[in-house]
Amino acid sequence: MNSTSPIEKSILKSLKDRAAIRSGAWTGHTSGLAVGHVQGNVVILPEPLANNFLRYCQRNPKPCPLLAVSEPGQALLPSLGADIDIRTDVPRYRVWRDGTLADQPTDISNLWRGDLVTFVIGCSFSFEEALLEAGIPLRHIAQQRNVAMYRSNIPTTSSGPFSGPMVVSMRPLKAADAIRAIQITSRFPTVHGAPVHIGNPELIGIADLAAPDYGDPVDVLSDEIPVFWACGVTPQAAMTQARPEFCITHAPGAMLITDLLNHHLAI
Amino acid sequence: MNSTSPIEKSILKSLKDRAAIRSGAWTGHTSGLAVGHVQGNVVILPEPLANNFLRYCQRNPKPCPLLAVSEPGQALLPSLGADIDIRTDVPRYRVWRDGTLADQPTDISNLWRGDLVTFVIGCSFSFEEALLEAGIPLRHIAQQRNVAMYRSNIPTTSSGPFSGPMVVSMRPLKAADAIRAIQITSRFPTVHGAPVHIGNPELIGIADLAAPDYGDPVDVLSDEIPVFWACGVTPQAAMTQARPEFCITHAPGAMLITDLLNHHLAI
Repeated sequence: MNSTSPIEKSILKSLKDRAAIRSGAWTGHTSGLAVGHVQGNVVILPEPLANNFLRYCQRNPKPCPLLAVSEPGQALLPSLGADIDIRTDVPRYRVWRDGTLADQPTDISNLWRGDLVTFVIGCSFSFEEALLEAGIPLRHIAQQRNVAMYRSNIPTTSSGPFSGPMVVSMRPLKAADAIRAIQITSRFPTVHGAPVHIGNPELIGIADLAAPDYGDPVDVLSDEIPVFWACGVTPQAAMTQARPEFCITHAPGAMLITDLLNHHLAI
Repeated sequence: MNSTSPIEKSILKSLKDRAAIRSGAWTGHTSGLAVGHVQGNVVILPEPLANNFLRYCQRNPKPCPLLAVSEPGQALLPSLGADIDIRTDVPRYRVWRDGTLADQPTDISNLWRGDLVTFVIGCSFSFEEALLEAGIPLRHIAQQRNVAMYRSNIPTTSSGPFSGPMVVSMRPLKAADAIRAIQITSRFPTVHGAPVHIGNPELIGIADLAAPDYGDPVDVLSDEIPVFWACGVTPQAAMTQARPEFCITHAPGAMLITDLLNHHLAI
């Protein structure tokens, strides 16, 4: 048989991109790779801190939507892709010791331990694809910038050493597009879901939209309204602030590519 | 058997309220009657104008969501309630001749003709009930005022003599409630559905929120955002402007009570 179904072709594409990453041939950003596939933020922590972090994610599902949590010491993530090995399948990692960046390797096989738990957290790439497919323009993508992100005054619910403010991403939209964007992203609770705020940024503690805490500023035009989503930088900020003895994350923009399709996340 | 199911009890309540209306014992507003039941705006037009009006509603489903359209000359509306007779079951009617208000009877049996077509159009009472049940406060209800309504600069799509701007209703909400209200009302497309605008009123041609074209003004507090829904006054305004030779509507606030439950409208 020579015929290959569209889904088979799509999974082959994610396998191919992941193979390039696994071999070390690709060590950069994953934006634009394996289009249509779910990409995830990665946090790897030793037990028992991992148990605190799991409760933190459970209590803050909008900024920390869990796509998968491994068994301790288990490097495979079969629910995200049959062949995924978290020790080799992220293009570039960050290794943190006592909360300080210690190394940025492309493979963590030599660091693997029997007490490590992997968390894969949903990412806005998935809902942005749905917005673009719906004809809603996203300025930071048109301008090839990173999305603007801010520390809000919305508190997260703490768990053990993990706490801190919710980080939000902002996308300026015309009102009709903002309404449509709320409808569309409501269908994607595992990748941050509906916005947490619209309109006046001061109401969530943001003094100046032109000065984001992370990412790049984008203009908000006079006929647009700023729309704020919970952001996956929230758990990273909480993790950095908790200063765990040992932790591994993905390097910014260098995400885990999964076999899951963004379309399949929609409820 | 003495047992009566909750749904049977509920239908009995709508039957009882409709019986009071039919007998002429109740000729006032229907707000607060048959709670939980769908109430509808009523427009009755002779053919062939009714065909134009049907196309107008089809082309403008957000301001003119059709719950039912009768066969010509057919006074019963079995899809809305087994015993509904449109000639007797609205508390008070308005009879229009050449676009001018001619009479406000409580029964139109003597005016009934074989060419009359009845339109029942969804009403915001249904989605307001869903918002209140979700814990979203609505100021005009708390203050016992009519909702604020405005002629926007959003055009409707014309059909024959029916045209004109979309009339919108405005409810001020905190941002988180506005997001939730968009989610909730999106599930009710037959009662105006999701908002058509949020934020800056000038963008849809409203110069002064304090001066509504219909209804009563309500305050918009500094931590609130105005949220605008398409309004059932739109088809009434189009009908009045078209000045049909003969037309019957419900009197403002005196709606048709149906056997349908608001909960059942949710998609």
